[in-house]
Amino acid sequence: MTVSTDTTHDGLAQAQTVTEEQIFAAHEGGKLRVELTDPLEDRRDLSIAYTPGVAQVSRAIAKDPALAKTHTWAARLVAVVSDGTAVLGLGDIGASASLPVMEGKSALFKRFAGLDSIPIVLDTTDPDEIVETLVRIAPSFGAVNLEDISAPRCFEVERRLIEALDIPVMHDDQHGTAIVVLAALTNALKVVGKELEDVRVVISGAGSAGIAVAEILLASGVHDLIVIDSKGALHTERDDIRHMKFDMAQRSNPRGVSGGTEAALQGADVFIGVSSSQVPEAHVAEMAEGAIVFALSNPDPEIAPEAARRHAAVVATGRSDFPNQINNVLAFPGVFRGALDAGARRITTEMKLAAARAIADLVPEPEAELIVPNPFTPGVAEAVAAAVISAVEPGE
Amino acid sequence: MTVSTDTTHDGLAQAQTVTEEQIFAAHEGGKLRVELTDPLEDRRDLSIAYTPGVAQVSRAIAKDPALAKTHTWAARLVAVVSDGTAVLGLGDIGASASLPVMEGKSALFKRFAGLDSIPIVLDTTDPDEIVETLVRIAPSFGAVNLEDISAPRCFEVERRLIEALDIPVMHDDQHGTAIVVLAALTNALKVVGKELEDVRVVISGAGSAGIAVAEILLASGVHDLIVIDSKGALHTERDDIRHMKFDMAQRSNPRGVSGGTEAALQGADVFIGVSSSQVPEAHVAEMAEGAIVFALSNPDPEIAPEAARRHAAVVATGRSDFPNQINNVLAFPGVFRGALDAGARRITTEMKLAAARAIADLVPEPEAELIVPNPFTPGVAEAVAAAVISAVEPGE
Repeated sequence: MTVSTDTTHDGLAQAQTVTEEQIFAAHEGGKLRVELTDPLEDRRDLSIAYTPGVAQVSRAIAKDPALAKTHTWAARLVAVVSDGTAVLGLGDIGASASLPVMEGKSALFKRFAGLDSIPIVLDTTDPDEIVETLVRIAPSFGAVNLEDISAPRCFEVERRLIEALDIPVMHDDQHGTAIVVLAALTNALKVVGKELEDVRVVISGAGSAGIAVAEILLASGVHDLIVIDSKGALHTERDDIRHMKFDMAQRSNPRGVSGGTEAALQGADVFIGVSSSQVPEAHVAEMAEGAIVFALSNPDPEIAPEAARRHAAVVATGRSDFPNQINNVLAFPGVFRGALDAGARRITTEMKLAAARAIADLVPEPEAELIVPNPFTPGVAEAVAAAVISAVEPGE
Repeated sequence: MTVSTDTTHDGLAQAQTVTEEQIFAAHEGGKLRVELTDPLEDRRDLSIAYTPGVAQVSRAIAKDPALAKTHTWAARLVAVVSDGTAVLGLGDIGASASLPVMEGKSALFKRFAGLDSIPIVLDTTDPDEIVETLVRIAPSFGAVNLEDISAPRCFEVERRLIEALDIPVMHDDQHGTAIVVLAALTNALKVVGKELEDVRVVISGAGSAGIAVAEILLASGVHDLIVIDSKGALHTERDDIRHMKFDMAQRSNPRGVSGGTEAALQGADVFIGVSSSQVPEAHVAEMAEGAIVFALSNPDPEIAPEAARRHAAVVATGRSDFPNQINNVLAFPGVFRGALDAGARRITTEMKLAAARAIADLVPEPEAELIVPNPFTPGVAEAVAAAVISAVEPGE
């Protein structure tokens, strides 16, 4: 099997094919290595980095725990943590099989934000055990990027870890996605000349990404928002939804729409797909003038971009071979870089909103096919980090 | 405060002084960093290292778990694990304060054996919780180097982890020390013309190192061995010893000696100090002709080397500023390198004995002041690794 990436499309990128052989060769032996910050060349170096010199540093930290932040690598180290239950589109494949993805994530942290990180994959899917385990090993690192943990467990795990740890914790599948969606939507609305406060938004998918996108849009001023799960629009009359979904039902769908995309998309301004379910072109055709379609399911968008474009003014996907790729890598490296550099104990909603604004601002004059920077645009993580730092309130 | 290292002594090394300022500067920001094995320069690289390419590797591991050994970094990654309860000579200083030492250990793994490793420090000292935690995160790495865990908990933690995990686990304070002591003793006995089977050995200290040294000497053919704790020689009539100590009492002290070093050192051939208690020169003076003294307590040897030399033919310490430094770094990098390269599931007694022989053989013609190689002698870890690999039995 071969994977096509960056196939020729609107002159966006050159046709390139990656073979299975090339992929496996690139992953052989893993993708990370640990290096020393300073060389260890002789006994003097050894006596500084290890005994007897190191004892002075350990003794100093024992007296003043704050020194662990400045004299170990923990304060600049992100743990990329997964239980392997919702890995990419592969589902519950377990800890070991998730490791190549987590190594890749660590590689992205390094490449885009210069952050050191280590994958920690967990041979348990029990939220109690996940929280307990991370609390026990927490002195080893300075932040936790949760990754590919299935809903609804991911909400509980994240919430409880934020309570239990005094370091930044963020589930990237939720908030990384939400931040980039908000950035992209901000610029897409500029293209069509609409305001967040006025638009009708429909989100297909009530998993980790769907709920988080809904949350950040509500926090950004969106009033008319409908979230759809596999049974239809979330609304308070439904008796089959609990927890996060019921909570979201109470705070969204002000017109009390029921049914699926057919009903919800009537006159809607924005469609955001973060499920793996398809949406018929006929439903998208019923959206308002100047519609915006983000079909983010990977590798198969909820609607083919070509079809979406027949009815929408702005179309984005999660794929690198179409314009407007909504890619988490625009957000998480800078968000963690900023949180760690600021010594923040939490990643707050304000910090996420600031990150989204920073990403949007990197495209000063948005166009229909240019609403977000691409991952390799220089300075993305730096801009996001700076925005996050400026949004940190004292004591956070 | 300044630490003197490698002060002039018998022309062994030049006088060098390291200031506290230099030590803290060297540890600032920590001593490790994570790097990518391959660059991530463009979208094609990204599509290989991360989505969509990485999905093929994850899917393959989900089908065939053995591929995790070849296509992630876990199989070549050592976790350096501590609960911070017995850190150097500092005692129970906690997880965060132990981190500089564990980073140093990881640096040594890299420098001497090219092995990647990450410090995992634990905010629990409960053996059940330590074992449980490591079992849960075990898919993240390929071997466990336990470090600076206090006795007697270290024995239980190591035993239970070896049972629970199918990867190499070794408590270095026990077995690293034991391997290098055996290597040094092998060569010291050549210098004085005695055999392991014939000598009387006295070990002062019944903690992690003392018990492990006794074990490896018994496994090497030593018959007359006495282990002394703070109350005196271990023997079966004592009712104040349990577990490892009682077990050792049953297998050692064949002449039923009671009392401390005064009684035990009468006519003894070998003294091995691995406690922080001092031994009076008068007791050492009662040892046999051609005595061997390893005074390994750091930074203050059980007896000053100058005093020991008045009565012993061969003297070794744990310090780099005297001849014959008994340094674990001669053993652990090569032991783990060998175990990992061989895909071994256990570090067996045979592998430890082979490692000791390899270290001893690196000094083909031992002299009183040259019984072990120094840490920077080229090829130590390679020789140890090769010996360990050759000692792996099928299925281990």
